[in-house]
Amino acid sequence: MAWTFPEDLATRFGNLELIFSTGAGIDQVVGLDLPPRAQLVRMVEEGLTAMVRDYVVMAVLALHRDLPAYLDQQRQQVWKTRDFVWADQRRVGILGLGELGRATAAALRPFGFPLAGWSRSPRQIDGVTCHHGPEGLRKMLAETDILICLLPLTDETRGILNGGLFAQLPQGAGLVQAGRGDHLDQEALLAALDSGQLSAAVIDVTVPEPLPAGHPLWSHPKVVLTPHIAGHSRPESAAAATVANIRRHLQGQRVTGLVDRSRGY
Amino acid sequence: MAWTFPEDLATRFGNLELIFSTGAGIDQVVGLDLPPRAQLVRMVEEGLTAMVRDYVVMAVLALHRDLPAYLDQQRQQVWKTRDFVWADQRRVGILGLGELGRATAAALRPFGFPLAGWSRSPRQIDGVTCHHGPEGLRKMLAETDILICLLPLTDETRGILNGGLFAQLPQGAGLVQAGRGDHLDQEALLAALDSGQLSAAVIDVTVPEPLPAGHPLWSHPKVVLTPHIAGHSRPESAAAATVANIRRHLQGQRVTGLVDRSRGY
Repeated sequence: MAWTFPEDLATRFGNLELIFSTGAGIDQVVGLDLPPRAQLVRMVEEGLTAMVRDYVVMAVLALHRDLPAYLDQQRQQVWKTRDFVWADQRRVGILGLGELGRATAAALRPFGFPLAGWSRSPRQIDGVTCHHGPEGLRKMLAETDILICLLPLTDETRGILNGGLFAQLPQGAGLVQAGRGDHLDQEALLAALDSGQLSAAVIDVTVPEPLPAGHPLWSHPKVVLTPHIAGHSRPESAAAATVANIRRHLQGQRVTGLVDRSRGY
Repeated sequence: MAWTFPEDLATRFGNLELIFSTGAGIDQVVGLDLPPRAQLVRMVEEGLTAMVRDYVVMAVLALHRDLPAYLDQQRQQVWKTRDFVWADQRRVGILGLGELGRATAAALRPFGFPLAGWSRSPRQIDGVTCHHGPEGLRKMLAETDILICLLPLTDETRGILNGGLFAQLPQGAGLVQAGRGDHLDQEALLAALDSGQLSAAVIDVTVPEPLPAGHPLWSHPKVVLTPHIAGHSRPESAAAATVANIRRHLQGQRVTGLVDRSRGY
């Protein structure tokens, strides 16, 4: 169980049956030579899920209430009320409907936002208009005022947040990026913010990390940037979840968070 | 029905039976000479309640996730993870348990914060440790990591957020000020932030409003300042609530939001 693993895992630990990532993603393991019998397990535990959910709800409310623009007014010492949109007219779309996306949708529901979500395969979630596949993505984007990225990083999702995607959103949409840095074309984000196609973005992951001083994302007035802090596993609950998974495995049951290595998550 | 009223209301409109404030507060009416039979009614309507609730939840999550400090790191272009506290160890205390305080408590519950609240008279609210009176206030403050002000402005609450109160909070507590500017001693807030007694504050109301350029609240690195935008009434729902109140009055029933002028809210 680790976040990063030695390159020679297969030869040094050839009999491993379970390999646990301490995080929700397993993109850091892709390309490693894993022992042939090993099952790869991503972290599914309530502490991590709640932490990411709380960050994303904070970011959605901040975009909904125009906080980046008010922060900019504060820097300029300008007291001015900005136009306001009621929550039931602010459409929120979630990319990724796994553990994190579903927990986030459930937490956003009481605020009254119309909710939609997109995933690779079809989903049914109470109170969320679910889309899937390329056609579903186009449909959701056209009706999304605040877009949340909680996707796993795979060959299919790398670079998905690009200029073509931003152009499909209504003008002035906001972005919450809590996926992986490689989901986002940072140059395209800056261009979309400068053109007004996007109004603001809350960004937790970048390429590279740490983001070097001087990078334009740091100082863009429409960007709130945090240093990859949206979520981390909680030792108490992550340990309990892992013990439960080991028990399942010993009893011949399927573990929670089992990675399908062909699809990459 | 108005926000501010003519000084000579009593003589010009001596037969008025109902006087509606378009806002949740009625402190702007205090001191006016009102017609003798008039009942004063503050705005209680779901649009306003939800809007304030959303602002305060955003502010609590922002303080919980250390956003003011991360914004300061962003200004300095520093990528550094800060210490983190889990939500079930972050105690939130609400000053004021009227419509707004109760709606905010209900919205904060799913995030797992231990919740407490304080009001003038005793209350019972599911999932909220309720305190009242001066002794109750002392007790709650000692156990509050994020303090929210949603009090009405009265002679009893004017200046309640002062150095003496801040000193009763655990060191490093945060403040969400969504009450009225006159609740807060702004000099004491700045001193408490500078000494580290408070870690950060989200402030929506000031004295005066607009806050003049150059005031130190604008540029304090531990302050997020918004220009009195936490809530305003929603025309559709406020109109419906007012019509319902007029109907109640005509039927001889008590109106919702009736102000007790002796206590001032």
